[in-house]
Amino acid sequence: MAEAEQVKVLRFWASPWSFRVELALKLKGVPHEKVEEDLANKSPLLLASNPIHKKIPVLLHNGKAIPESLIILEYIDETWTDNPILPKAPHERGMARFWSRFIDDKCVGACWMSCWTEGETQQMFMEQARACLRILDDELGGRRFFGGESIGLVDISASFFALWLGVLQEVAGISLINGDEFPNLCRWIEGFVASDVVTECLPPRDKLLAVFQSKKQAILATKSMVY
Amino acid sequence: MAEAEQVKVLRFWASPWSFRVELALKLKGVPHEKVEEDLANKSPLLLASNPIHKKIPVLLHNGKAIPESLIILEYIDETWTDNPILPKAPHERGMARFWSRFIDDKCVGACWMSCWTEGETQQMFMEQARACLRILDDELGGRRFFGGESIGLVDISASFFALWLGVLQEVAGISLINGDEFPNLCRWIEGFVASDVVTECLPPRDKLLAVFQSKKQAILATKSMVY
Repeated sequence: MAEAEQVKVLRFWASPWSFRVELALKLKGVPHEKVEEDLANKSPLLLASNPIHKKIPVLLHNGKAIPESLIILEYIDETWTDNPILPKAPHERGMARFWSRFIDDKCVGACWMSCWTEGETQQMFMEQARACLRILDDELGGRRFFGGESIGLVDISASFFALWLGVLQEVAGISLINGDEFPNLCRWIEGFVASDVVTECLPPRDKLLAVFQSKKQAILATKSMVY
Repeated sequence: MAEAEQVKVLRFWASPWSFRVELALKLKGVPHEKVEEDLANKSPLLLASNPIHKKIPVLLHNGKAIPESLIILEYIDETWTDNPILPKAPHERGMARFWSRFIDDKCVGACWMSCWTEGETQQMFMEQARACLRILDDELGGRRFFGGESIGLVDISASFFALWLGVLQEVAGISLINGDEFPNLCRWIEGFVASDVVTECLPPRDKLLAVFQSKKQAILATKSMVY
């Protein structure tokens, strides 16, 4: 008889990167333990599991550690093959990877910095952020999800826009994402957050708003990402 | 009868990112056409194939475009499955992806900036670069290649260190990589550049040195990566 699998996620409840991993496991129906990290005082387990970056999330599968959310998503898809989150065909797989990286490398940072800068610098970041959102809105087009009829790699990667960006812009007092400018993205957000599997693991908006409001001064001072 | 495959690489001969793609195709034995790009005057084909980043390399396979070297490497491995460049087991695949991203996200930029800055800023980048090289040297350990006995994803991703870094430090008049500090990496470089398949597609060192020397003033002014 096979021994029971052990699946743990080292996470922080308010992190969109932790959320990616938990949503993917939920989509796959993989039971897992959530290990909450105190990011001001990281656990020896986190430091040992991700000695290079020392960041959550980390997936621990039968004791073996995989760090970095996009890498974890690929691992999850290769390990538990039901309900695939990457498309089957190599070209579509490649483009799903491309859009996920585009979100991480270009969009999230521009949105983040738009919230925590002022004056001309803020205008520059907001222009960058809007250009990225424009591209994503066009890429999504009339589809229900980036993954087509079901949530896939790009949707999971885009979770940040579905909840966190709205909270951040409220804390910062700016408006980046709205239905007039980005109708496809806004329709996607509605469908994404209303989907059962997302609802089950999304952190509560009021709690998220409170945590970012309480951290606002600290974030303004460092401008560094809060995970 | 199946139609002949059409495989093209939009590339620049002196680019380590183009080299990654060409080495992977060579390892797979996939015949391909090299389309040289003038980076000062990019072709309509490049702009149409990679409209978001407008960068080489782009792989065109039967007319379909895949941009971004690490994404292309995965595409190549999924499309032509002989001589795998990623390991088979999900955990090893994940860690190969992790090290490739570490090279791109942390190491290459630090090495690049070490070559084109001065004074305290340069010292800071050189420290960062050495810390990255230290981590890679330790990760490699006594193995012949990062991929074990044969060249794999991480080796291909690390091509920059095998030839380009040596050329750049010569142009910049600094020393980052040497056998005393990084014995494993230096042994790896020797083995990598001596391997037949690498020799067949590596650009000539003297030509590379000449191009970076001639571009030195322009690079110093912008510090931006030359592809």
